[in-house]
Amino acid sequence: MPNAFYGVVEGNKILLDKNETTHIKIVRLSENDEIKAFDGKGNIYYCKIDEIKKNQTICSIITKEKYINTFNPEIDFYIGASKFDRMKILIEKLVELRVNNIYIFHSQKSQLKFKSLEKFKKTIIESSKQSENPLFPNIQFFNFEDFYSVKNPIILDLTAKITLKEVLEKINSVNKISIILGPDMGFSKIELENLPDNIFRTNLGNTIMRFETAGIYTMSILNYYYNRLY
Amino acid sequence: MPNAFYGVVEGNKILLDKNETTHIKIVRLSENDEIKAFDGKGNIYYCKIDEIKKNQTICSIITKEKYINTFNPEIDFYIGASKFDRMKILIEKLVELRVNNIYIFHSQKSQLKFKSLEKFKKTIIESSKQSENPLFPNIQFFNFEDFYSVKNPIILDLTAKITLKEVLEKINSVNKISIILGPDMGFSKIELENLPDNIFRTNLGNTIMRFETAGIYTMSILNYYYNRLY
Repeated sequence: MPNAFYGVVEGNKILLDKNETTHIKIVRLSENDEIKAFDGKGNIYYCKIDEIKKNQTICSIITKEKYINTFNPEIDFYIGASKFDRMKILIEKLVELRVNNIYIFHSQKSQLKFKSLEKFKKTIIESSKQSENPLFPNIQFFNFEDFYSVKNPIILDLTAKITLKEVLEKINSVNKISIILGPDMGFSKIELENLPDNIFRTNLGNTIMRFETAGIYTMSILNYYYNRLY
Repeated sequence: MPNAFYGVVEGNKILLDKNETTHIKIVRLSENDEIKAFDGKGNIYYCKIDEIKKNQTICSIITKEKYINTFNPEIDFYIGASKFDRMKILIEKLVELRVNNIYIFHSQKSQLKFKSLEKFKKTIIESSKQSENPLFPNIQFFNFEDFYSVKNPIILDLTAKITLKEVLEKINSVNKISIILGPDMGFSKIELENLPDNIFRTNLGNTIMRFETAGIYTMSILNYYYNRLY
């Protein structure tokens, strides 16, 4: 059951789409019931349901709050395109663990090419609602060639010799960390050889982790290291 | 694609069951091909496929190795029965992150009662194969009343005031940590009030995490804190 709904603001109303209206019906809400809604931009709306239509729910805004919780440092994830079901688990968990921005890149070993981010955006909305995150992470495509411009980049690289702890101690105080996670098939040799020099390379230990596990594991450690969720 | 297969040893043969035989066929292995197999008890077998039948594959053992990697401290997870799909994600990830033992308990707010562990065992085998873990974690049922006998128990409790870091610093050096994770609906007030005094209570921060995310997050931090995977 979602803790909040996602809606688009129009004047003093907030409009829930077809998907959200289905949720409204599943949890048996009725007209005049009060709900909490997010616009994804960091605003929290307490509102009353005016009308539940077939594909839309219209609510009146009673009060509005600005979400003030900020998580420091900002953490961005750069994810190599991989099987959708595995990316879905990863993105769902990254949202719960309060990632700031998500970038999807197509790597030489990516076995599929995503043309649209719609399915990922849906996952972000669902997970944000579930975990009461009023400020939805941004998601966009990214070109592998542009890594030289990324701030404090750390790449998860099975061939690296340095631990994540050692990397984090080198970086010291920062306001943004960028984690680069290859596709489930890994980076190509050429890609690894041609990375910009400023990228920190780290391996996560002597075990074999699935692609999405490596991402969730890293995000967990960053939150712990920076005491970011308290 | 699995990195290894699971089999039962009989003399100098290793027998793969129906499920594993399906995998053998999916990855297009043939008679006389060589594969790696685990018995789940910490042995690694390099063997040759003798015969692929409809529901069974018979292999000859060429060499056997004893798996020597040990992860310190031992980490056990006590999991409150929750929706299967969420438990499946959690158990899959705990195996990848090298949990030692898994215990399932039925809590007052558990909405379903598992009578068998078969589905969970299957998840453990799959994840162990995938992540090359020759020593499969044990799984068994556990009674909530028996928590007084557990070693270094830490309960994830939203109402607790102390951080995981503070708890870990109090515990100091240990050879076993026991993490207690309530069901997805949480513990009941009565359960929390009647816990043995020796249980450390911790909360994971100010965000709302799904049940399985809280477990994966905690397991990640323990691995990091104890430098357990290197």
